[in-house]
Amino acid sequence: MSTQPGRPVLADSVRLTPDGVEILDRRVYPFEVRWVRCGTSEEVAVAVERMVTQSSGPLFATTAGMVLAAREARGEPPDRAAERLRAAGRRLVATRPTNNHIRDAVLAVLSGTVDGPLPGLAGDELVAAVEDAAARHDAAYWARSEALGANAASLLADGARVLTHCWADAYLITSVEAARRAGKRLEFVCTETRPYLQGARLTAATLVEMGYRPTVITDGMVAAALADGLADVALVAADRVTLDGHVVNKVGTLGVALAARAFEVPFYALVQAPDPLAPTVGDVVIERRDGDEVLHLLGARTAAEGTTGYYPAFDATPPHLVTRIVTERGVYPPEQVSRHFDEESS
Amino acid sequence: MSTQPGRPVLADSVRLTPDGVEILDRRVYPFEVRWVRCGTSEEVAVAVERMVTQSSGPLFATTAGMVLAAREARGEPPDRAAERLRAAGRRLVATRPTNNHIRDAVLAVLSGTVDGPLPGLAGDELVAAVEDAAARHDAAYWARSEALGANAASLLADGARVLTHCWADAYLITSVEAARRAGKRLEFVCTETRPYLQGARLTAATLVEMGYRPTVITDGMVAAALADGLADVALVAADRVTLDGHVVNKVGTLGVALAARAFEVPFYALVQAPDPLAPTVGDVVIERRDGDEVLHLLGARTAAEGTTGYYPAFDATPPHLVTRIVTERGVYPPEQVSRHFDEESS
Repeated sequence: MSTQPGRPVLADSVRLTPDGVEILDRRVYPFEVRWVRCGTSEEVAVAVERMVTQSSGPLFATTAGMVLAAREARGEPPDRAAERLRAAGRRLVATRPTNNHIRDAVLAVLSGTVDGPLPGLAGDELVAAVEDAAARHDAAYWARSEALGANAASLLADGARVLTHCWADAYLITSVEAARRAGKRLEFVCTETRPYLQGARLTAATLVEMGYRPTVITDGMVAAALADGLADVALVAADRVTLDGHVVNKVGTLGVALAARAFEVPFYALVQAPDPLAPTVGDVVIERRDGDEVLHLLGARTAAEGTTGYYPAFDATPPHLVTRIVTERGVYPPEQVSRHFDEESS
Repeated sequence: MSTQPGRPVLADSVRLTPDGVEILDRRVYPFEVRWVRCGTSEEVAVAVERMVTQSSGPLFATTAGMVLAAREARGEPPDRAAERLRAAGRRLVATRPTNNHIRDAVLAVLSGTVDGPLPGLAGDELVAAVEDAAARHDAAYWARSEALGANAASLLADGARVLTHCWADAYLITSVEAARRAGKRLEFVCTETRPYLQGARLTAATLVEMGYRPTVITDGMVAAALADGLADVALVAADRVTLDGHVVNKVGTLGVALAARAFEVPFYALVQAPDPLAPTVGDVVIERRDGDEVLHLLGARTAAEGTTGYYPAFDATPPHLVTRIVTERGVYPPEQVSRHFDEESS
């Protein structure tokens, strides 16, 4: 599972090995290429909580963590092994509440095995079944991201200058690859995305690996950059999209959307599918993280002593500020995004 | 000229000494309390260029730099000494183009001495006259800031939660002192203000020194914070206000104003006076600084290699996004800010 040449490092950042899971530490990439080794599903959960990986990383960490749980249950009878798998799933889901990748990955593994067609498995058979379900979920995620990327690329003109916020992960990679296949040249302006700098580090490094020379701005410069005509389109991922078209994404997205609207720049949000369990934004838990993270950067203190940090990890952009939502099935006005599900049978 | 007890360190951050000028290094305060010693007016200019001081700091550095220029001209005849002073003034004005503090300070010293009532001075008499003009300009700046602070405090309700961006310097100190004298309790939410962190460092440290416990947010969190109801009012300084009510201030201010408008929070800008030489925003030079500064923080690399930084140091907020502009003479709707000058004779 080594990184393929020409493929960004972050396209393959969770590695299942015979004795554990290796997760690329996104907190320090690209300044350090450090892999965190997890020997148990509990260690995977702790790594996710500590932000070793984020965006789509927790999805792959979760499927791999479920494999570790199956290995941990190898010596147990079917009922206890199944309960152990479910408990590991609950633990993983509890790590981070806003993105539904983890929940969906746990459900996919369970419903593909002990809670689905294979209730009586144990031992090596259970491990093999969970490995298979995990691999299928991972592959399906990439296939759906490819479809999403093709839809997103259809919105980008040749020569478009694209403003990004945070790190759109697989969606960014597939969108850029699809645009490139269509012969479209692109340029990028990336917000740095404090406090973790996902934009300055992950997005920018990945675009550099893909052959671009992105421009980096601080998060406060978005409005000035759009007022100056620095970008033609704003493109962000969404951690969750509600059925009525709210876009929940990394904090700062709302400010990008406000600036895009003020300066008449289209604002596109990418998500494989809206969340059928979230009719509106009140159904989404916005994660509040430790405020101390706002007072530091890459381990160094950035704020005066005596202050308190406030860190909502996500914000919600209302549909009236969103130009289009791109899913794996199509491109929708935000208030019509639930039409995504009408196309399920196609 | 030591710092008075109870007074924030930044209220007295440029010290004229017998053999030079000491300037508090605002790039590292409060993590380090380092004073940069300048022996010549040229060294003062370099210090201003390198952002050792900013906001109102360059004003005091400029008047002190002009004193050093007068000392350097001590042995010269009146005509050559006067020309030397003017050359030092031009050099100081050339350091940073957006804020008019430096220009005004140079003009005040020159028009108070060699280009005004005292054209024939030289030697110690010239030095004494320049020292006097410099001290008068410094004192006038504080007196005008006190008047501004009283006007600003009149807009703040008891218990108001105030969102700040960047560092309003003397205006912040006088506004908070005036509110306190009026018995008003205040709370503060400060943007960190990348790339220099003036909010997380200078504003937050000064408020802590004044007895508050500010909350710090990243620049990208402004919209989320206002959507969450974290602040009742946005209060920023302005480096320049045009006669038609555009507010030129630290980059990021425009995004604060957009968010304030979206969430119906009043947006107030503080400036001693609009610039009578700037009818509109096209008359203001927006300083572009070295993009590398965006790629670093406190000396550490923050962005991937292969990227380019973009750093407009200021942005311009149009009058339709500004609730009120506060000057030393009153509180004005932005489109009426030139009425400030109607009250000159009062």
